[in-house]
Amino acid sequence: MKLDHLIQILLPHDEKFYAYFEESAQNLVDASKILYELRSGSAQDHEETVRQIHELEHKGDNVTHKIFAELNATFVTPFDREDIHILASALDDVMDYIDGSAQRFVLYKLKNCPPEMAQLIEILQRSVNELQKGVSLLRDFRKSAELQKVLERVNEYENEADTVFQGAIADLFEHEKDAVQIIKLKEIYVGLETATDKCEDAANVMESLLIKHA
Amino acid sequence: MKLDHLIQILLPHDEKFYAYFEESAQNLVDASKILYELRSGSAQDHEETVRQIHELEHKGDNVTHKIFAELNATFVTPFDREDIHILASALDDVMDYIDGSAQRFVLYKLKNCPPEMAQLIEILQRSVNELQKGVSLLRDFRKSAELQKVLERVNEYENEADTVFQGAIADLFEHEKDAVQIIKLKEIYVGLETATDKCEDAANVMESLLIKHA
Amino acid sequence: MKLDHLIQILLPHDEKFYAYFEESAQNLVDASKILYELRSGSAQDHEETVRQIHELEHKGDNVTHKIFAELNATFVTPFDREDIHILASALDDVMDYIDGSAQRFVLYKLKNCPPEMAQLIEILQRSVNELQKGVSLLRDFRKSAELQKVLERVNEYENEADTVFQGAIADLFEHEKDAVQIIKLKEIYVGLETATDKCEDAANVMESLLIKHA
Repeated sequence: MKLDHLIQILLPHDEKFYAYFEESAQNLVDASKILYELRSGSAQDHEETVRQIHELEHKGDNVTHKIFAELNATFVTPFDREDIHILASALDDVMDYIDGSAQRFVLYKLKNCPPEMAQLIEILQRSVNELQKGVSLLRDFRKSAELQKVLERVNEYENEADTVFQGAIADLFEHEKDAVQIIKLKEIYVGLETATDKCEDAANVMESLLIKHA
Repeated sequence: MKLDHLIQILLPHDEKFYAYFEESAQNLVDASKILYELRSGSAQDHEETVRQIHELEHKGDNVTHKIFAELNATFVTPFDREDIHILASALDDVMDYIDGSAQRFVLYKLKNCPPEMAQLIEILQRSVNELQKGVSLLRDFRKSAELQKVLERVNEYENEADTVFQGAIADLFEHEKDAVQIIKLKEIYVGLETATDKCEDAANVMESLLIKHA
Repeated sequence: MKLDHLIQILLPHDEKFYAYFEESAQNLVDASKILYELRSGSAQDHEETVRQIHELEHKGDNVTHKIFAELNATFVTPFDREDIHILASALDDVMDYIDGSAQRFVLYKLKNCPPEMAQLIEILQRSVNELQKGVSLLRDFRKSAELQKVLERVNEYENEADTVFQGAIADLFEHEKDAVQIIKLKEIYVGLETATDKCEDAANVMESLLIKHA
């Protein structure tokens, strides 16, 4: 909170956007790391995991609100207003799908995490880590080759997640006979897969920033 | 229709936007009031209820179209074009989810409305009533403190709806053994909960208008 | 690829947008024609069908990316940037829902296509054919009466699809006793119906272009 207050007062407008985007990406890194804990542990552990992620989601919401407020209050922005809006929304969406997937895990009283779900969580974590690198590279477009590689990796992870997702769903319908269990697991698979889609959306905005500024 | 024609001819451009937003909010108030009737009554009553809501949805569509057409035809708008677009879309979305939830109620031949569903409908109605107040307050930003309170209440209702929703879903998976019934009820719960989310989206645009204009 | 390269080099900026939109619409026409083949044939045929559609989806993605890149690189555009963005996204969405519906057909190992699904595919194909006409008419707004009729037909198809969809879902819940089968079929119905919704979204942007330019 105090750091945030300092940012509000001391930083020039441009700097604030960079700082907020980095805060938003850091939240995602933290949340996806905690999400990883759903892979093991007891029901009680899972509840604590979900609580922590939901807290990060609230933190993320605040950052998104600050970006929008800053956007409304600032004449000169480092990038097109539209792009700032889309990037902030995409990062916010990633968090919402991480949070939603985690909440369902507890809400549906799942006891363990199927291997394909663990795989999706792993891919998501890698994707989010790349997003964080990408966001920090926005400060200096002379490193555009590096940013380009980061964005390509986010795209690859999305493809990878898509393949795992398709396999998981095919497998689920093939081997799970309980329709209720299918409903539960499918919804979480969709949530996790959508989270990596949203990572790709964020990467796409950064790519368009690259085209405009590099 | 005649009133609408008068609006088209007599009102200055700014006034039209306010009038359209108020018309859109009034439609939502009417629809959510009718939705409330799903809580009791016979299957035949429900069909009539759904027909009435669908009519309001059509009316709402027309208002949204008129806002977009006016936006295209007008150089000077009272707010940023983007904000007008988002607010109109959010109000339209609320209506779509009210309409969709009601239609499914009849389509799925539900006989009665579970208590949590009734609760969600009640919260949605309160949220929509606040939206209407909010929209009418856009005409005069000197009442910004009042608008601020209205928007806070919409946010509270969204949180309340979220809690009721989570409880309803947990309960559904815990006690309902029929997977088909789970599919049906869950979809309506999601529809109603999303409607309150869209109310919050509308409130968020109004909040950003407040920041810019108050 | 070679044609595309020529377009890149030789065409003035305005022309590129028209050419890309036409390419995007042509992809949709091709994909919806192939989708039609799911109505009959063996599981092996279906896999080949889905593979072909997915290839078109990739092709479509590339066109969408080119439109966005061109948008970023061009100062003067034939239409509002915002409208170009929305139209390209809507066409891209239509393709995504065609591709998603087809993929699920194979993923869920459906053996045959219920009559209502065949009907939805047929309506979708007609809607996409109209979209193609509409896109080509964007080049010359003197033919605005013709464009207007095209857009009305897209709207009619969306209404038609909605009616078929509602009937299909009611029927599904009435006669299908297997919850897993309901989950599978419902998801494809929703995908196809959403595809026609997205056609309508595309038509709505074209209508707003008509208002601004005719």
